[in-house]
Amino acid sequence: MKTKGYAALSAKTELVPFEFDRRSLRPRDVALDIYYAGICHSDIHQAREEWGPSTFPMVPGHEIVGKVIEIGSQVSKFKVGELIGVGVFVDSCRNCSSCLAGLEQYCLEGMTGTYNALERDGKTVAYGGYCDKFVIDEDYAVHVPQNLELAGVAPLMCAGITLYSPLKNWNTGPGKKVGVMGLGGLGHMGVKFAHALGAETTVFSHSPAKESDAKKMGADHFVVVKDSKDLKSLSKSFDLILNTVSADIDLDAYLQCLKLDGTLVVIGLPGKPYSINAGTLLDQRRSLAGSMIGGIAQLQEMLNFCETHNIVSDVEVIKPDYINKAYERTVASDVKYRFVIDTKSF
Amino acid sequence: MKTKGYAALSAKTELVPFEFDRRSLRPRDVALDIYYAGICHSDIHQAREEWGPSTFPMVPGHEIVGKVIEIGSQVSKFKVGELIGVGVFVDSCRNCSSCLAGLEQYCLEGMTGTYNALERDGKTVAYGGYCDKFVIDEDYAVHVPQNLELAGVAPLMCAGITLYSPLKNWNTGPGKKVGVMGLGGLGHMGVKFAHALGAETTVFSHSPAKESDAKKMGADHFVVVKDSKDLKSLSKSFDLILNTVSADIDLDAYLQCLKLDGTLVVIGLPGKPYSINAGTLLDQRRSLAGSMIGGIAQLQEMLNFCETHNIVSDVEVIKPDYINKAYERTVASDVKYRFVIDTKSF
Repeated sequence: MKTKGYAALSAKTELVPFEFDRRSLRPRDVALDIYYAGICHSDIHQAREEWGPSTFPMVPGHEIVGKVIEIGSQVSKFKVGELIGVGVFVDSCRNCSSCLAGLEQYCLEGMTGTYNALERDGKTVAYGGYCDKFVIDEDYAVHVPQNLELAGVAPLMCAGITLYSPLKNWNTGPGKKVGVMGLGGLGHMGVKFAHALGAETTVFSHSPAKESDAKKMGADHFVVVKDSKDLKSLSKSFDLILNTVSADIDLDAYLQCLKLDGTLVVIGLPGKPYSINAGTLLDQRRSLAGSMIGGIAQLQEMLNFCETHNIVSDVEVIKPDYINKAYERTVASDVKYRFVIDTKSF
Repeated sequence: MKTKGYAALSAKTELVPFEFDRRSLRPRDVALDIYYAGICHSDIHQAREEWGPSTFPMVPGHEIVGKVIEIGSQVSKFKVGELIGVGVFVDSCRNCSSCLAGLEQYCLEGMTGTYNALERDGKTVAYGGYCDKFVIDEDYAVHVPQNLELAGVAPLMCAGITLYSPLKNWNTGPGKKVGVMGLGGLGHMGVKFAHALGAETTVFSHSPAKESDAKKMGADHFVVVKDSKDLKSLSKSFDLILNTVSADIDLDAYLQCLKLDGTLVVIGLPGKPYSINAGTLLDQRRSLAGSMIGGIAQLQEMLNFCETHNIVSDVEVIKPDYINKAYERTVASDVKYRFVIDTKSF
């Protein structure tokens, strides 16, 4: 299937127009026209080989929404014409304890990334969503609700589920106090979900200018943190804190804001290891945990939750020829709050 | 009440014989003859001011067992002649959410330590268990089963509960795989409890000579760890790992041994912060947590569990004039597995 998109041809060059073939449909495959693809900071890290060697040419993009245009002979989950979403992975081993538990992102053999990866045959390069068409096994795609503004749905497929999953796993709900560190592409989804789940929600940010946005998204409190001292008065008060900040940070000061049995969940990958004082964990039996996107079942659950609560990402829609500029602005945190490529214009 | 014991008079001098008065009994107080007091490594840290300024003279000791000799007018929990145990704290605020939940060790106003602390009046110095008598509010003491070898019960009051509590909190039982890092005063209690709770138990140690002891205590497996590479084959296999090692250690290599949703609990206080890679936590949604002793209710639960399973600490009983030598040997890890002072000989 002829496909037109944008690709990085090397770590040192800008993305350029790129044409390639997608596979013909297998019995359980679905083909889609991509309508929107979000730009995730991890696209940039991988296109620039900041996380180790990448496979080029690379068509990034793992926040994909579109419409089904063709289905394989054994497809039962989708019909032609339906809205469909694809996220961070397109396959997994399907047999390990994680896959059987619906937690394919923790597949013991490793999930198959949507791009910058090889398919499970070990040789076919996986191309992502910065293009006009996609082909995927129906088990790894989800239904997209019709009532949501579609461009804002694309970032839910990675940024959204990355926040929704830990909020659900650590039992966010009424009576719980949740903190979100950073109000960017990830953090703004955390605020919307924590609020919709009924938690008292606090944003920690070093940018006072973001307070009004945070409040509009559902934050009950906004704490400007210029220095660890700004957190002193919040000691032992949070059930859950989500760290969306990938910059080097004094995590210990945030851990001290957790109450008994509270958890701080890291979901970004900072360049340096965290420095953690054992005493801060011992006091109040605190935990530092990690969380990585979510499984397919939870991705669908999140979209259904978004349908009910009318939640989408705040996005700036761009044309393909703006991708390289959008990369620069994403690195500079100059976006409210996520870039989404209008892939219909490829 | 005249009391004879041993005290540190300064951080730089050895412990010496010391006499002092205990308070007369209040209505809810219990007085006891101390029979045995364990030597905990934290006694040494505090006597030597290795954890910050201490209060001198200091009578250390927070692993105390003895027999009730007198009770206050309103005491209902104990009778004269009964066996009794006292642990790491002798009071707390009694009103905060932690105290009301029976987790006095996490009292929001701070528990009152058994020694090197002031009572809640803010002025009376609390003296610990290296002596012949003790006076305590009945709410902060526990019943000691009669079937256990009493010298071996003393270390249960700190070393025992320090391991029992996280094993219970993180749901240790049949079908779970538990690792214990280090086979010392703390670790050997972890092995006995994990085994008795039905978990498949592994000891990580750098001392091959400890294998036969570990197996006798109930370990199913013994892994000699000279180097992080020795842990490679154990990747993603443990539900819970307890770190009893206070030396600087490559904790990341142990975190990688945790399976999905596994937790590594630190219970010691190393001198340096841990260096933790976020990626190791993200993969398999792992947690690093802390745990500190246990509440009074759980202390009693543990002793009842020990009664049923005939569990005590492996101890070397010493006379008071051996305390200073025992400190040296404890620092050198030259004890199997805990020193206990025969306090009847004061």
